[in-house]
Amino acid sequence: MNKVLVIGLGVIGASFSYALKRKNYYIYGVDKDSETIKYALNKGIINEGSIDIEEFLNKADIIILAVYPKDIYNILENYKFNKKQIVTDVSGVKEELVNIVNDLDLECKYVSIHPMAGREKSGIMYADASRFIGANFLIIPTNKTDDLAIEEMKKLAKALDFGNISIITADYHDKMIALTSQLPHALAVALVLANDDENTVDFIGDSYRDLTRIAMINHKLWQELFKENKNNLIKNIENLTKKLDNIKDCLKNDDYLQLEEMFKQSTIKRELMNKKKVAR
Amino acid sequence: MNKVLVIGLGVIGASFSYALKRKNYYIYGVDKDSETIKYALNKGIINEGSIDIEEFLNKADIIILAVYPKDIYNILENYKFNKKQIVTDVSGVKEELVNIVNDLDLECKYVSIHPMAGREKSGIMYADASRFIGANFLIIPTNKTDDLAIEEMKKLAKALDFGNISIITADYHDKMIALTSQLPHALAVALVLANDDENTVDFIGDSYRDLTRIAMINHKLWQELFKENKNNLIKNIENLTKKLDNIKDCLKNDDYLQLEEMFKQSTIKRELMNKKKVAR
Repeated sequence: MNKVLVIGLGVIGASFSYALKRKNYYIYGVDKDSETIKYALNKGIINEGSIDIEEFLNKADIIILAVYPKDIYNILENYKFNKKQIVTDVSGVKEELVNIVNDLDLECKYVSIHPMAGREKSGIMYADASRFIGANFLIIPTNKTDDLAIEEMKKLAKALDFGNISIITADYHDKMIALTSQLPHALAVALVLANDDENTVDFIGDSYRDLTRIAMINHKLWQELFKENKNNLIKNIENLTKKLDNIKDCLKNDDYLQLEEMFKQSTIKRELMNKKKVAR
Repeated sequence: MNKVLVIGLGVIGASFSYALKRKNYYIYGVDKDSETIKYALNKGIINEGSIDIEEFLNKADIIILAVYPKDIYNILENYKFNKKQIVTDVSGVKEELVNIVNDLDLECKYVSIHPMAGREKSGIMYADASRFIGANFLIIPTNKTDDLAIEEMKKLAKALDFGNISIITADYHDKMIALTSQLPHALAVALVLANDDENTVDFIGDSYRDLTRIAMINHKLWQELFKENKNNLIKNIENLTKKLDNIKDCLKNDDYLQLEEMFKQSTIKRELMNKKKVAR
């Protein structure tokens, strides 16, 4: 199964295309913007391209929906994929999506994936074949997923040089992603909006810079992701606020031993994450 | 004035030494650990070294106190610098320090600086002569600062390839640094401590990784910095919590237009910081 139709040549779809094409997958690329298709063909990101999904509908073994969540539903309703085909998406939130897919009457196989390699920049000009090296790859089965579909996703992940591969439920995915993806974005946005001093730029070092880079955010995409993971994100904001309140209480009570204890704990926990990563 | 005594060869003191020595400053290095002195001499980080401050006390034109805040006071009380010497420190919080220096009876000149190029790693083995390129450099005068002292600090900053140089009051420094330095560290620590799932590492991407790197924190140094900037930091934690609550309210009220508006604002503000940086 090496013919892949990528629908949506944004930064993720185009990076997938670019990297898979180098590993001898044959890539059909579809995007609503004809300029994007021209660019993709010129740069060798895809083998064939079109603005019309129909053109490649029956030619591909694997279909990757690299579009906004609501466009995924439109495509699944309006196009018919056959029973030999495996359809997947790279959306950042899964529970609602998997529920909808489970209820749909589809002939094709469907398995959801989450390549954890987003960037603050969007668009095909940021396509990068090496962006997935060592990154986490999550596979989220639906009731239309069989062993073959999972194997093909693992093959994709390996071809793209992803690091750890996890197979998990949509429910667990969304709980964890609220913590590791939506919450950091909420923090970055809050941090940038927390002051209005015009001279802030003269006072920033690497810490502020690193923590706020993702405050440059694709507003359409991320309001959808926040919306779809609303309840988990609210809980995570509340957990985070509690920890911030703990730090504030240490300061108010001049309890610097307790503060130091929190710093020691966070250091140990974060260092362990580096070690686990290297061990794999 | 090109003879510099650096007291404390941790990551910042050693990086200063390393970089200034390459620019033809003559560096006397003092550290309480004799192994550190050996290392510094072997690596060519300093010209001469000792564990005894007295040895170089009268030889240097400029003295850089690259030690913890409380050690700064010990040194100023126990050693006598002469009226031609300029003493400075690289501490991350200034108001309390400048107040104390203002009240001291010192013969030497004293001007405080803040090189905004900290790292999560401590120790001389992380010394890096190129770490200051393009970074912000803050000069904080005391009542023992004259024009010559400020000029010499500017020369240092230029020799070290810092970017923007600001001359500011201790009060304003601490307000801004609570926002751009202590608050990001508080956020990173809170984020790492906000969950206990052992599998978190399998779900992290660049955003979580970037936002939590500084949760690996020098607990002794940072509890001192938090303590000395306590009131500003409490205010900043409260401001940040308000913005997080705004995001939470958008979610609870399903007000995604308002959420998108916050994303647009944070994007504009953060992009402007990149542009201002490049413009300099």
